[in-house]
Parts: sequence; C-alpha cells; structure tokens
Amino acid sequence: MSKLKISKATRLLTVEVDALNENGEVLATPIAGEHPLTIYVDKREIVTLMTLGQAPEALVIGYLRNQRLVRAVADIAEVQVDWETDSAAVTTHKAIKNLTQRMKKRTVTTGCGQGTVFGDLMEEIDSIKLRDDVSLSESGLYNLLDAVRRHETIYKSAGAVHGCALAQLSGDHAEILHFVEDVGRHNAVDAIAGLMWLNDIDGSDKVFYTTGRLTSEMVIKAAQMQIPFLVSRSGLTQMGYEIAQRTGITMLGRAVNKHYLLFTGRKRFIKQSSPTMLASA
Amino acid sequence: MSKLKISKATRLLTVEVDALNENGEVLATPIAGEHPLTIYVDKREIVTLMTLGQAPEALVIGYLRNQRLVRAVADIAEVQVDWETDSAAVTTHKAIKNLTQRMKKRTVTTGCGQGTVFGDLMEEIDSIKLRDDVSLSESGLYNLLDAVRRHETIYKSAGAVHGCALAQLSGDHAEILHFVEDVGRHNAVDAIAGLMWLNDIDGSDKVFYTTGRLTSEMVIKAAQMQIPFLVSRSGLTQMGYEIAQRTGITMLGRAVNKHYLLFTGRKRFIKQSSPTMLASA
Repeated sequence: MSKLKISKATRLLTVEVDALNENGEVLATPIAGEHPLTIYVDKREIVTLMTLGQAPEALVIGYLRNQRLVRAVADIAEVQVDWETDSAAVTTHKAIKNLTQRMKKRTVTTGCGQGTVFGDLMEEIDSIKLRDDVSLSESGLYNLLDAVRRHETIYKSAGAVHGCALAQLSGDHAEILHFVEDVGRHNAVDAIAGLMWLNDIDGSDKVFYTTGRLTSEMVIKAAQMQIPFLVSRSGLTQMGYEIAQRTGITMLGRAVNKHYLLFTGRKRFIKQSSPTMLASA
Repeated sequence: MSKLKISKATRLLTVEVDALNENGEVLATPIAGEHPLTIYVDKREIVTLMTLGQAPEALVIGYLRNQRLVRAVADIAEVQVDWETDSAAVTTHKAIKNLTQRMKKRTVTTGCGQGTVFGDLMEEIDSIKLRDDVSLSESGLYNLLDAVRRHETIYKSAGAVHGCALAQLSGDHAEILHFVEDVGRHNAVDAIAGLMWLNDIDGSDKVFYTTGRLTSEMVIKAAQMQIPFLVSRSGLTQMGYEIAQRTGITMLGRAVNKHYLLFTGRKRFIKQSSPTMLASA
C-alpha cells in the first residue's frame, strides 16, 4: 500500500475588522476565520463543515474516523484540501462499502447541539474498555493546565474558537503532542482524532483536554479514541456524566489554574497532597 | 384549519452529582440535563437532537422552521413530545412535499461546527431585507444586558448551556419576551424561532441576544427571522462578520455590563452620550 498523499492547506487563522466600542473608539479587532469545507470521498459529496482551517486535512480524516465512514487510516490514499474551491477531496484505496446506506443512517441520527452521529456511537459505548493501569496526578494535571494556558493563541487574540489538546504525561510532566483550535468544539476533537491516525498515536495512556463543555458526544469521542483521561475548562451535561460513568473514563471539569472538579473515574487520579483520598474514592 | 395541538413536556433542567474538588471536598454539583429527542414528522424519522428540554415543543417547531422543512406554523397540526420514548411526534395538515429529496440535500450540507443546513441558507441571504426605521440606543442595550444577566439561571447554577433571548425595546426599556437555554446554541436559537411562530411574533423590531459565538449560522438565522439587532456576550467569526455585512444587520459582540463592540449596521445604533459618532459611522 502506498504512502498517504496529503496537502498542507492551513488558512490564515485571524483577520482584523473595525469595531466601535463603548468609548466611541474604532478598534482593529482580530476575529477568527471561518470557512466552509466540503468533503468529497471518492468524488461523492459527504458534508460541509465550517472550520477555522488550522488543520484541515486532519479535520477531514478525523471526521471520517469519528463518523465511522473510514475504518483505518490505511484505507485512505489521498487527502487534498483546496481553498480555491473550499473542498477536500479524499480518495480511498477501495471504495467504502454501503456508503449510501451509511449516509442515509447518518441523516436521521444527526445530534449534539445538532452535531454528529448519535445512535451508532451509543451502541459502541458498552464495548469500550479503557486502561486501568494508568494514572493522572494532581500536579500532572496542573502542569497540563499550565501548558494549555500558554498554547491558546487564537482564542486569546480573537475568541470564538474552542481548543483541544492531546497530551502525554511522564510522571508529573505534561507534554502537549497536538493542539488544535476550531470554530466548533466537534471539529477540534475530530482534528485531534485525525492527527492521532496520521501520527499513529495510541490514546490509551494520553490525556484529552478541551476548552468546550463535556456533552455526550465529547465523552463518547474521547472514549472511542481509548483515552482514559478527559479534562475540560468548562462544565458538563447529565448525559456526558452518565456516559463517563458507563465508560469509567476519568473526567475532570472546571479545570482552570489550581481548581478542578473530578466527576468520574477517581481510581486513576492521584491527589498527592492527601493520598488518603484515594482510599475513599 | 384547527388549532395546533401541543404538549408541554418541559424536563427537570438540572440534576446534582458528586464531584471531588482540589481541597479534597466532595461537592454536590448541579449539572445541566441533556436528553436525546428524536423528531418524527408524519411518522418519518427526521433527526435526533440533544437538548436540555426546557422548551422541547418550541425547539422542534423552530428546528423544522430553520431547516425549511415546514413553511408556516399553520401547516403543523400537532406536536407531542414524549420523554418515555424520547420522541417528538409532529403531524402536519398535509404531507410535506419532497421530504425525502429535502432530507437528502440536508445530509450533504450539514455544517457549523457540524451544525445545520448551510448551502440552502446562504442562497437566501441576499434576498433578506431588514428594517432600517428601527434603532437601538446604548442605554437600551445596557438595559437588555442587565435583564439578560438576571435571567440566566441554568447557566449560573450548572454552566454548560447557552442562552438566547428575544427582546422588545420600547425607548430605552428592554423587555425579554422569551429566554431559552439549551446545551447547544443552535437548539436555543431554534427554540426561539419556534416560540416566535407559536406566539405570532414579528421579528422586525426585536433584538436577538445570545451567549454564544456569532458564527455564520447564528447570523443567518437571526436575519432570516427578520431581526435587525443581534447581540452576543461572545466574539464572532470571519464568516459571521461577512454575512452580517451582507445582510446589514446591526451586530454587537463582547456585550457584557457596560462594554460592547459594534461590528456592523451602525446606522441603527444610537450612542446617546456622543451623538456625533453617528455621523462618522
């Protein structure tokens, strides 16, 4: 099988526009890019995503991965993103089976705040088994939050984007392997999923961080990538919580600076300052 | 034509779960509800939305409105939301024409951060003409922001939701007609669209407020509802800005307390403290 051919079509991520503020001043204000990107698989139109365009090829691959339209990165021969036509042309080694049928099913299960496949994903939840022989320490968490804080460049300048990070922990040291921002939190997580395929990264000992809320789909996607640690700056929803319980994922919300709320999967979390907490968890 | 028959199936909006914080304390933490709701139109499955469940019937009607699957509220005979089966059964007076064809088109144009119809919406943009004989004063804006601040109850207690408000301005007095929160900002705006249909509200002199970001779809939906004023606590994206310019909508971002950034449609904004700004706008 030949190597994947892939474009590198990152967009300019912010532009400046004039805005009038409450003091009557006209300010040059950076705003985040947002561009339609229509995905074609073997010349068949699949979907149009609105994206910042930071990692468009990874987004396309991760979208196909998370929608279960492609089963392995090795099945993809080529990904060409072309911003002249706002399109991403994906070529597979052999045509995807039952694409019409699977697209049809997708239609009726589009969910989220109107996001992505729902029914199929729920079916997979109970088959997911996350690693139990890995742990996240409180100081490792704090180091991760500090590393993330330094990375969020588009958000800091322009707002209106969500960021996702995939991190490797070695003891208490947190290293960010990938960091992607996008206008939608689902795009950001899909792009991370694409980068994991492209770089052959095993999720089973990694930490997934998102600035976005922990809704059902965010938890499902993290668990499907076999990632045992899910950390968010934001809050969570009831279904996000229920799915986290079912998968046993270690999930922390409201994680900013030295604050956090640990919701599920306490067995993998090590609170060094008071190790007796572990026994009660 | 008979009157619309409709359920009132509001869900319990928050539940409490235990979380462990950085001080080793177990806190009862309110989290927002999130429930799948599958919409059936004349017994045909359309979509599954994930929703807080605050105004599910309005959400269903507004979804069908904003997806252009139903052309007028008078076409709907009945909406029955049943949380036993997580379903919303919609009955129309006469079957929707070409539903299969329209659903198929929807499949390939699902957009946003993976949100909703895109292609069709863009085609409509240039036909939209918003009223120019209405204005929003700075003190009216401040009064609106104050009213909104007092309304955001789920967000304040549980986070993880977005809020949308439809407001009526009389001089500098701002009255919130409807306020809806949901786990996705698209659901919240769709629910407002549904409430406008249900209560026969003309948007042409109203203000639409959202806690969410001003992406392309948010601006498109506000303009389609004929609303000339769009206000957000958050920032905006490049395409949100471009569409706001094309429609001439008066759009303000970063609107919190006594701060705001006025991006487009300055002609409808009255900055009382320095009226000379108007001439330069």
